[in-house]
Amino acid sequence: MMDVTKYQIGYYNPPKTEYRWVHKDHIEKAPSWCSVDLRDGNQSLIVPMSLEEKLEFFQLLVKIGFKEIEVGFPAASETEYEFLRTLIEQNMIPEDVTVQVLTQCRDHIIRKTFEAVQGAPSAVIHFYNSTSVAQREQVFKKSKEEIKKIATDGATLVKQLAAEYPGNFRFEYSPESFTGTEPEYALEVCNAVLDIMQPTPEKPMIINLPVTVAMSMSHIYANQIEYMSDNLKYRDSVVLSLHPHNDRGCGVADTELALLAGADRVEGTLFGNGERTGNVDLITLAMNLYTHGVDPKLDFSDMPAIVELYERVTRMHVYERTPYAGALVFAAFSGSHQDAIAKGMNWRKEKGLHQWNVPYIPIDPTDIGRTYDGDVIRINSQSGKGGIGFLLQQKFGYDLPPKMREHFGYTVKSISDHAHKELSPDEVAQVFYDTYLNKCAPVDIPDAHFIQKNGIFAAITVTMPDGSTKESSAQGNGRLDAVCNALKAATGQDFTIETYSEHSLQHGSTSEVAAYVGLRWGDGTVTWGAGTDTDIIRAGIKAMVSAANNK
Amino acid sequence: MMDVTKYQIGYYNPPKTEYRWVHKDHIEKAPSWCSVDLRDGNQSLIVPMSLEEKLEFFQLLVKIGFKEIEVGFPAASETEYEFLRTLIEQNMIPEDVTVQVLTQCRDHIIRKTFEAVQGAPSAVIHFYNSTSVAQREQVFKKSKEEIKKIATDGATLVKQLAAEYPGNFRFEYSPESFTGTEPEYALEVCNAVLDIMQPTPEKPMIINLPVTVAMSMSHIYANQIEYMSDNLKYRDSVVLSLHPHNDRGCGVADTELALLAGADRVEGTLFGNGERTGNVDLITLAMNLYTHGVDPKLDFSDMPAIVELYERVTRMHVYERTPYAGALVFAAFSGSHQDAIAKGMNWRKEKGLHQWNVPYIPIDPTDIGRTYDGDVIRINSQSGKGGIGFLLQQKFGYDLPPKMREHFGYTVKSISDHAHKELSPDEVAQVFYDTYLNKCAPVDIPDAHFIQKNGIFAAITVTMPDGSTKESSAQGNGRLDAVCNALKAATGQDFTIETYSEHSLQHGSTSEVAAYVGLRWGDGTVTWGAGTDTDIIRAGIKAMVSAANNK
Repeated sequence: MMDVTKYQIGYYNPPKTEYRWVHKDHIEKAPSWCSVDLRDGNQSLIVPMSLEEKLEFFQLLVKIGFKEIEVGFPAASETEYEFLRTLIEQNMIPEDVTVQVLTQCRDHIIRKTFEAVQGAPSAVIHFYNSTSVAQREQVFKKSKEEIKKIATDGATLVKQLAAEYPGNFRFEYSPESFTGTEPEYALEVCNAVLDIMQPTPEKPMIINLPVTVAMSMSHIYANQIEYMSDNLKYRDSVVLSLHPHNDRGCGVADTELALLAGADRVEGTLFGNGERTGNVDLITLAMNLYTHGVDPKLDFSDMPAIVELYERVTRMHVYERTPYAGALVFAAFSGSHQDAIAKGMNWRKEKGLHQWNVPYIPIDPTDIGRTYDGDVIRINSQSGKGGIGFLLQQKFGYDLPPKMREHFGYTVKSISDHAHKELSPDEVAQVFYDTYLNKCAPVDIPDAHFIQKNGIFAAITVTMPDGSTKESSAQGNGRLDAVCNALKAATGQDFTIETYSEHSLQHGSTSEVAAYVGLRWGDGTVTWGAGTDTDIIRAGIKAMVSAANNK
Repeated sequence: MMDVTKYQIGYYNPPKTEYRWVHKDHIEKAPSWCSVDLRDGNQSLIVPMSLEEKLEFFQLLVKIGFKEIEVGFPAASETEYEFLRTLIEQNMIPEDVTVQVLTQCRDHIIRKTFEAVQGAPSAVIHFYNSTSVAQREQVFKKSKEEIKKIATDGATLVKQLAAEYPGNFRFEYSPESFTGTEPEYALEVCNAVLDIMQPTPEKPMIINLPVTVAMSMSHIYANQIEYMSDNLKYRDSVVLSLHPHNDRGCGVADTELALLAGADRVEGTLFGNGERTGNVDLITLAMNLYTHGVDPKLDFSDMPAIVELYERVTRMHVYERTPYAGALVFAAFSGSHQDAIAKGMNWRKEKGLHQWNVPYIPIDPTDIGRTYDGDVIRINSQSGKGGIGFLLQQKFGYDLPPKMREHFGYTVKSISDHAHKELSPDEVAQVFYDTYLNKCAPVDIPDAHFIQKNGIFAAITVTMPDGSTKESSAQGNGRLDAVCNALKAATGQDFTIETYSEHSLQHGSTSEVAAYVGLRWGDGTVTWGAGTDTDIIRAGIKAMVSAANNK
């Protein structure tokens, strides 16, 4: 039962609130990225990854361009220990990539962590303890001073072991559950750790302020980060890092606003995998920068391959509506959207534009390995003539005249509606073929001869509705008009050509023409036909015959 | 291929930037909610809902508590027309619920919309046209003045028809693609529409400012809304509405910050279904208010039933990490999280707390029909003694002593690791039964007699490892100690009782006792056993025998 009296604000505002960040427009350069897929991501899976799966995922992260990768909690898990040792012993860590290992601020765990990381080209030792009011009270049952001492004792041991062990170490400290901690106290603990670690601009230290559980609106977190950034000691020697989770659905906004507020670095995962609602999605963050013309320094140009690998090794599914990566995020089913997209794509082509600016599609899907066909204009009962016509033109080369597009659109929508399913591009094309194209039965005009004399004189052979053959001839303003008149004379039907258009068709080396004819009948109705042929006249006659057969 | 030079900022900042909203801490009351599940949600589905499915969804929305429900675009689709007529003619719209119908600003579509809505108890006529730079240029190929005239002509006709048709109408205007429109121009168009509609405080009009496609960071949208709220004419007669989409993963934050900035109303969908990345998720917005102690005025107390209906009629899947609703959003697999949750839950119980404040779980899962068992503490190879022990205690009543929890934890983790799968609570319990409980073979003590004299004297019958029976007796400090000594004398083994604890077990009407024994052996190892019996002594003996058999 929902009982709102059980809840109250559980976060803490910093003492000073300047909100300087809000006056910045957008993020101007990419932060440092750290993937925690193999730690936070992995520990949230129903079935954690095997050693081989982790190795494959690690190689993907390297390929995407991550320079910092948290590889686990080696002192707390044999599997993670083994994974780290495999990376090191099989020389799988490139020179410019730093592995990061997590450790609680506990003596034997810190010691085992240094053992685990021996031989890595470089490593970030990431130590943490929980500082929130709830954890101090309920879990550790310790005072503020005692909790701070856990952090400083940890820092002291980390510093000592780093001096004893060979290796190229950097350090990261997290006051875990930062968002449930009083900012002044988080600051006090971080500064106490910094006093021990004594970072320098040449050897800076990472201070990571996690949204372990999201508790506030995004602007509050940004304000907390601004306060910390303004008041941390050794600020020019601190890399201020974010580690947001998504409990309130605001992980991306939390991160973006906090980057404006002074943060330098982001920890997150691909597709936002991670505890509960997930870590912040690094793909969305990076691609959001990209849409603003800022180089994200991560390469997602083959998104389908990244999705495939991720889904296979994590056994999670990339949600259809995940920004930039989901199956449906470029899809337009609705008529008005499809129409605008079709016009925008044509505009782009006509103007030869470099800048992407197509309505309803935030980025060019081909930038990340998606396609226009199938990904963008998708056809169901909600679709409209613009989209359906665009699809037929884009993928199959048939550029129907506007009124015929409308007729075709209703035909396709109705088929989708009755079948209660989406139609693939091939199915849409099949509807076009079946309904309009080269329908030369029962009526046909297998032969036509022309004489140019006061306009055009046409002599044609007509296959009549009953299968018999009849010769007919007539005068006209043009060849098709003359054939039309001859056909009317033969069949006794009453129609005129209302619409005619044609264009060349490119498929492969053959050079065909497609023609479209709309016939208006005595009763006011209009029927449509299309014809293709290497000869433009024959294409037109086929289109006319098809339209006649559609009465 | 990713090419960042194709992109640049595509949104427009308002002229004045005061950002007063940023100084507000949180949202203090629920906005008006309008569900667009049956329109924007439906038109984004691969297979749109059938009439029957829409009727069922409509009833769900009413049950949740929505008072405004957009039911479609009746003039543009036969299915939506039929759906609206069914709602009206079958009297399915409660008196306090208003249906909303969408129409483009086109003469024949507006007229058909008024026909479609005849007989509804009340209706919002929602008219729109697209105002963005991209759409003006690429799609409509019209000037600012011409685009504004589309809006004002639409408003004029809407006002005229509302006077002609009987019915209780309210009005909504959307400058569609607002986020790609210059704010000054959007303001000019909205004010021109308001000048025609002449709303009053008694009969206010809705001005809806959609994030048709997300283009900026969240604080920019909030600033655009603040500007519009400050500068709209008839402001006390305007309900300022938001309609965010999620292209940048920031739909929730966009909405929340814009509510601080002056908006009154939100259009969105359940689970964020909708075009591309979806509309804003109304469940997340409502539940975010709830966690801050603000009544959302929507009832999600039976979330599993809502998920079931939604998945069935939309054929979409609720993503596992969707805030508040996904299958994994309360799940804790990792040892340290489980330990904190177990301690937090025990703290809550001991203190009899009403306020919810458990680490790592933003709300009490039982508030929305979820459970602790199975939803929260979930067991795999990442899990720890705290969580595994908590689960066994919570669901099965066995409260193991700390050192035994640790041993049990390693046993369970190792089984999950080797089986490469999650273990259900029942499977975890089975590991406990198989490993420790009442393992009275091969060694057993079927009989024990006690005499109290200078401590306790015990005479026991021992079933020996080879199956033979032996009588033995010994003195001890207590009954179990005496039995232990007698057992050692019989088998010649070397162990002492290191740990003993017991508690009563409640299942149904039977009143049993559970006892736990840790035996330390001559070689320094410790083995564990558990026993249950209605008799406390026999429970202890069974536990000791089980521990002995575990050597």
